[in-house]
Amino acid sequence: MNAKVFAYDTTLRDGAQAQGISFSVEDKLRIVRKLDELGIAYIEAGNPGSNPKDLEFFRRLDELTLHHSKIIAFGSTCKVGANPAEDSQLASLVSAGTPAVAIFGKTWDYHATAILRTTLEENLRMIRETIAWLKAQGKEVVFDAEHFFDGYKANANYAMEALAAAVEGGADCLALCDTNGGSFPDAIYKITHRVVERFPGVAVGIHCHNDCELAVANSVAAVQAGATHVQGTINGIGERCGNANLCAIVPNLQLKLGFEVIPPENMQMLTSTARFVSEVANVEHNEKAAYVGADAFAHKGGMHVDAVNKNPVSYEHVTPDSVGNSRRVLMSEVAGRATILGKIREIDPTLDKDSPETRAIIERLKELEHEGYQFESAESSFELLVRKMLGKFTPSFELKQFRAMVAEPALEGVFNSSAMIKIHVDGEDEISAAEGDGPVNALDKALRRALERFYPQLREMKLTDYKVRVLDSQMASAAKVRVLIESADRTSSWTTIGVSTDVIDASWRALVDAIEYKLAK
Amino acid sequence: MNAKVFAYDTTLRDGAQAQGISFSVEDKLRIVRKLDELGIAYIEAGNPGSNPKDLEFFRRLDELTLHHSKIIAFGSTCKVGANPAEDSQLASLVSAGTPAVAIFGKTWDYHATAILRTTLEENLRMIRETIAWLKAQGKEVVFDAEHFFDGYKANANYAMEALAAAVEGGADCLALCDTNGGSFPDAIYKITHRVVERFPGVAVGIHCHNDCELAVANSVAAVQAGATHVQGTINGIGERCGNANLCAIVPNLQLKLGFEVIPPENMQMLTSTARFVSEVANVEHNEKAAYVGADAFAHKGGMHVDAVNKNPVSYEHVTPDSVGNSRRVLMSEVAGRATILGKIREIDPTLDKDSPETRAIIERLKELEHEGYQFESAESSFELLVRKMLGKFTPSFELKQFRAMVAEPALEGVFNSSAMIKIHVDGEDEISAAEGDGPVNALDKALRRALERFYPQLREMKLTDYKVRVLDSQMASAAKVRVLIESADRTSSWTTIGVSTDVIDASWRALVDAIEYKLAK
Repeated sequence: MNAKVFAYDTTLRDGAQAQGISFSVEDKLRIVRKLDELGIAYIEAGNPGSNPKDLEFFRRLDELTLHHSKIIAFGSTCKVGANPAEDSQLASLVSAGTPAVAIFGKTWDYHATAILRTTLEENLRMIRETIAWLKAQGKEVVFDAEHFFDGYKANANYAMEALAAAVEGGADCLALCDTNGGSFPDAIYKITHRVVERFPGVAVGIHCHNDCELAVANSVAAVQAGATHVQGTINGIGERCGNANLCAIVPNLQLKLGFEVIPPENMQMLTSTARFVSEVANVEHNEKAAYVGADAFAHKGGMHVDAVNKNPVSYEHVTPDSVGNSRRVLMSEVAGRATILGKIREIDPTLDKDSPETRAIIERLKELEHEGYQFESAESSFELLVRKMLGKFTPSFELKQFRAMVAEPALEGVFNSSAMIKIHVDGEDEISAAEGDGPVNALDKALRRALERFYPQLREMKLTDYKVRVLDSQMASAAKVRVLIESADRTSSWTTIGVSTDVIDASWRALVDAIEYKLAK
Repeated sequence: MNAKVFAYDTTLRDGAQAQGISFSVEDKLRIVRKLDELGIAYIEAGNPGSNPKDLEFFRRLDELTLHHSKIIAFGSTCKVGANPAEDSQLASLVSAGTPAVAIFGKTWDYHATAILRTTLEENLRMIRETIAWLKAQGKEVVFDAEHFFDGYKANANYAMEALAAAVEGGADCLALCDTNGGSFPDAIYKITHRVVERFPGVAVGIHCHNDCELAVANSVAAVQAGATHVQGTINGIGERCGNANLCAIVPNLQLKLGFEVIPPENMQMLTSTARFVSEVANVEHNEKAAYVGADAFAHKGGMHVDAVNKNPVSYEHVTPDSVGNSRRVLMSEVAGRATILGKIREIDPTLDKDSPETRAIIERLKELEHEGYQFESAESSFELLVRKMLGKFTPSFELKQFRAMVAEPALEGVFNSSAMIKIHVDGEDEISAAEGDGPVNALDKALRRALERFYPQLREMKLTDYKVRVLDSQMASAAKVRVLIESADRTSSWTTIGVSTDVIDASWRALVDAIEYKLAK
């Protein structure tokens, strides 16, 4: 029986503070679902007191049935001189309806006096009374001890008093934060160890930032010192140099040190989860990332590869399969074979891993991934691909031609994007045209207008998100473009993908898949 | 007097093994010059026995006058059963003419027997005799103990015997390699400490890889255990997950732990050196990198920024100046007036917070953020906005009209995106047209073609990234689109933004800002 460590993900809260990261409510729900599947114990998902988008997100959480994860709403202690029962920010926090909450408070004396501009005693009262009030509302409470390590170095007694105030208030977990990211593993180990010894009845957590490129080592050191909650984000997304990277911490703790952090059978989902979050966040996935990057198990040819095949441990510290990644000699599929087979068998349960159809699909997948396709977050396109290759797909229409045009300045103050299209359905031609907000929108409208006569159910479908990424930014104008389109109807949402050197062509491919998927449902 | 640690850079040797990295002889000479200026003690610059390009590089080294760095040529022990004096690879190594050489050898018993296919005794002879022969040629010799930590874990006695053979041969330094990158700081510390105790007369070095995202922590732990040579690469460039990153290790050791690694007055060159190597290697600089990324000292929000200005240590573990980086305050609606004022005063120092111009800019910023602009990652657009509002901006051209067209299927298999444009510069009209990968690319090309006659410096500018986000995905077709364009020339990169209901219009705005910013520089 391995010692249990709780993974505490804050991608959607602290991670979302990063420059250029902005999650829609729909994005957040998709990520929560994915983290729950992976088996993350706690998901700190937002700050209901700070913005209306997070409030809507917490309302919509009821739509999800979670199996592993407990959702945490995040807030702060009450204000200086205030009563927690009368604090509107705390009222929002409670009204989010989560079983657990996290609140941050000051533990560095300097921050209490110079930033909060209050007395050291008042700061302790704020911590103690806020937590006591939240406990009285029936919440599990995590106390995020902001700047704890810097505070401890400056005034160890006061930092410990702040934790003691949290414990007196009834805190369930003391999460020690290296807020500025400036601490080193030896200090983190010693200080965490002292906290664990001083508060034996309370869980201790660790929250690190990567400003010295030590966040993973610091998190591991804290767990070795007795911390049992480890906070971080997927891919280390976060402000400045990022938060501690759960995609390295979780396998480090579980595969290398023998802790149990997520259900062992889920470890193979690590790579696909990491890629999924990169796609949803619309950031380039770090292909050099430990464990989950495409280069993590890439080997150059020759003797080296022979040696790896003969005995992987000779050149690999863990096997790529163990984290759902794969060994690469040249370019090859990113997803594990077992995952792909699972998807194929959803469509045709008679196939197994040795069926020629399976091999052909895996070959095709490799080709497409080589071209820049990425199916982790576009499963609907993958399903259509499998159906096509198994002969289980009939196209709903045939394109004869489209033309899209844009001009600026536009006549009469309208941006003049327009498209016309001619399609062929059931032996009939149909032509239509539309104006739109850009050529893709115009094309989308024109295509639907042409199709709706044949497929009236398309009226209830809408395009809900549209993302574009340049794949090889070094190659400038020769770069490929990857488009992800998210669509929804009354009951579900689905994502499709297109890749091309031309953004309109890539959009067209994703759009056609989106419509075909709806019609195939 | 601080304890001395020798920085040992292997960007040009082990770093150059990374996928997609290829240095010309000229590139290598430029990097050597830069590393010497920074004060790196050892530069492992290539493998003269393995390729003619490296041989030419070593010949041309005479062109440089180095002040701080000793160049190291890299090779391996002699072959099984061979005499070092008759080994052509060792002859090349010596003929490189460097004062010091590094050779790698096996220290993991499994690798000696299964990969080299020899006896454990023969492997020891190869190490001992190779080093003895190189010493007889007058070289300083570093022994790279390949797979040392894995070897030690498998057979500690044999791993130590291999080091003893190197010491008997006369090695000046024993560089302990975590070749597979699978070790943890506690193990690195303990094992390094044993080596330091066992071989008191010999320098001990450390060479780590980042497969567990622990390479920086491991390198620091080894130095804390007594290692005095620390190997790594600039920006952590290297195979798989990369080598240990000197850009984090050097300031960690010197600014945080008090070792002397490079001359203290050179620490401010760290950021520019890191950017220089990214540029020469033609890889995207990691803006989230510790110490040397543009985001490393980026701050959001009002009160937070006030606190940093008042006392940097409250939210920064070191000052950005100490590594030649700079503090960035991200422009956003949560940024306080002080933040925005700071930016405004960079352009016009006579303004203060009560100036009508300042108020007008803040009002305009709020309006634009309400429309969906986000300046925190598009400071160049913000700077242009301020210049425009202060009457300190003259547009470089005026748009008369553009038209962009897309058709599919395209004629002759080319995706038919094209654009034509008419602009007005200095009393002259210019018209041009271009094909492109999508309408934005076609527009970009057509616009530059038209402008280059007037502004030849635009030839050195390239578009390096293009990102699109739908802002309100719930509103479907009425949604706004935010486009971020990242551009670069030889010395810097900048990001501009455009927001519109039409993706082409948004792209156009970001594109015009990108060009105007370049021309205003």
